[in-house]
Amino acid sequence: MIKSRICEILGIKYPIFQGGMAWIADASLASAVSNAGGLGLISSINAGTEAVRNEIRKCKELTDKPFGVNIMLQAPNAGEIAQMVIEEGVKILTTGAGSPAQYMESWQAAGIKVIPVVASVALALKMQSIGATAVIAEGAESGGHVGELHTMALLPQVVDALDIPVIGAGGICDARGAAAAFILGADAIQVGTRFLAAEECTAHENYKEKILKATDISTIVTGKTLGHPVRSLKTPFSKTFAKMESDPSVKPEEILSFGTGALRKAVKEGDVNGSYMAGEVAGMVKKIEPAKDIVEDLILGAENLLRGTDKFLA
Amino acid sequence: MIKSRICEILGIKYPIFQGGMAWIADASLASAVSNAGGLGLISSINAGTEAVRNEIRKCKELTDKPFGVNIMLQAPNAGEIAQMVIEEGVKILTTGAGSPAQYMESWQAAGIKVIPVVASVALALKMQSIGATAVIAEGAESGGHVGELHTMALLPQVVDALDIPVIGAGGICDARGAAAAFILGADAIQVGTRFLAAEECTAHENYKEKILKATDISTIVTGKTLGHPVRSLKTPFSKTFAKMESDPSVKPEEILSFGTGALRKAVKEGDVNGSYMAGEVAGMVKKIEPAKDIVEDLILGAENLLRGTDKFLA
Repeated sequence: MIKSRICEILGIKYPIFQGGMAWIADASLASAVSNAGGLGLISSINAGTEAVRNEIRKCKELTDKPFGVNIMLQAPNAGEIAQMVIEEGVKILTTGAGSPAQYMESWQAAGIKVIPVVASVALALKMQSIGATAVIAEGAESGGHVGELHTMALLPQVVDALDIPVIGAGGICDARGAAAAFILGADAIQVGTRFLAAEECTAHENYKEKILKATDISTIVTGKTLGHPVRSLKTPFSKTFAKMESDPSVKPEEILSFGTGALRKAVKEGDVNGSYMAGEVAGMVKKIEPAKDIVEDLILGAENLLRGTDKFLA
Repeated sequence: MIKSRICEILGIKYPIFQGGMAWIADASLASAVSNAGGLGLISSINAGTEAVRNEIRKCKELTDKPFGVNIMLQAPNAGEIAQMVIEEGVKILTTGAGSPAQYMESWQAAGIKVIPVVASVALALKMQSIGATAVIAEGAESGGHVGELHTMALLPQVVDALDIPVIGAGGICDARGAAAAFILGADAIQVGTRFLAAEECTAHENYKEKILKATDISTIVTGKTLGHPVRSLKTPFSKTFAKMESDPSVKPEEILSFGTGALRKAVKEGDVNGSYMAGEVAGMVKKIEPAKDIVEDLILGAENLLRGTDKFLA
């Protein structure tokens, strides 16, 4: 078994988190991952705060294992969500898109373990200083909102700077990526794109099909000019978005308005004009399979790789 | 010892290439790396074809070990260089910025092993089909000219697609990065930024100082709007370049003219208005040391990590 402080701290069997993907990470996927021994996460981005509450309650019915909620801090209802998770007795939170400093006191009083996503050493240090249990160092290979640094550079630098555990994310799709992350110093890994192809993932079948058809060059980062870079599959939508960004006659408001609701349309309706967020590793996802098989392929596969490293040596 | 087909094919001791950095990779650095057991590379970008010929001749005096030349295929004198390396009896070439297809026949007739840099699976497959000895899969964490994909995603996908050996590059700076690359399937690694801090690197001391002072967030990619993205340190020069790119009133010719000669100025003069190309890992470079120590820290360090992976297991 892979040793990890994270497993002891969170009470999970395997050091793997399922990414809290907006609109996608619901009770179905999170409970499947938690039941498989990883940490399932429910996204706070859904049809409002009550919808998220509902997913939390469903998840409790579907698993008796630990699971968490990922809170997107820049969402308009972030404050509401921050309070609701306390009411619902959630014990593990991951946070994205900024600093959760303003909520830390009330969360800690409620016994919640907080694990922020970070994209730089400075933010990681700040999170450690305000009492984070661990951080997720997420390279910009990931799908969805991305930073500037990538896993090979970000992860070891965050590991060197911090005392608390570091979860590696971004570009991890199979046993090789998982083992590489552990070698780079990760205490656990977080995986998003591969779980899009989990049987228990409720995203529209068009979404899954696009992931299975993706190649190495299928993703694009848009939104840099708006200050919110996002990685998604190259589609008519994302290509139009990129064109609008490079056209000085198009106002930022027009671009924002064009993009609004596009992820929901992709996830729920499989709309051709939706935003299909996915990581650089989308081309490595080959089949639909149970979340349990994904968890075990990654973690038991990484164990086997780390156990058999003498094959690299003469 | 790390096993590698590359060591047998090229006759080198350790599976590590020193990146053929433009203006920087000269006889001094290349011979030091080759003497240390790696593969030193001389850049074709210097003060003209005869200057490169001169570096090749100097390198032969400084080492009896194998070394190579990196040919930048889009340089105006690429054809001249392609012929000159045959005249000088160079036996190993790496190539960047496109396909070397038009030169392959004459190089192969001269017994030259050709190892192109690739940034996608499609280009890697094409290079294999035209007789490349190996390819260098370079993630965009690297300094200088970059592609779209990063090492965690690019390297395993190229490895899966090819039969010939794959050298991993981009984001590799210490033993952890090296070991991670081997786990991801690399037959060897290529390292650039760390060698900027080699004692034998003749780059201006201001260049080295900037590398030593870099942090995790010190690099920026500019030139995307011109179709030639380049990663360098954030400096007044690169920030101005980025501003010009985002200003629709500035013509591409003006930006190109602003950038011309900037790398040479940085390397040779340490000019504050130079372009200090460096990889995302610049923040991990901590000291000036002999190239031999860098080679051994990376390769013997990776060996130790791979030998001791049971520490990750319980």
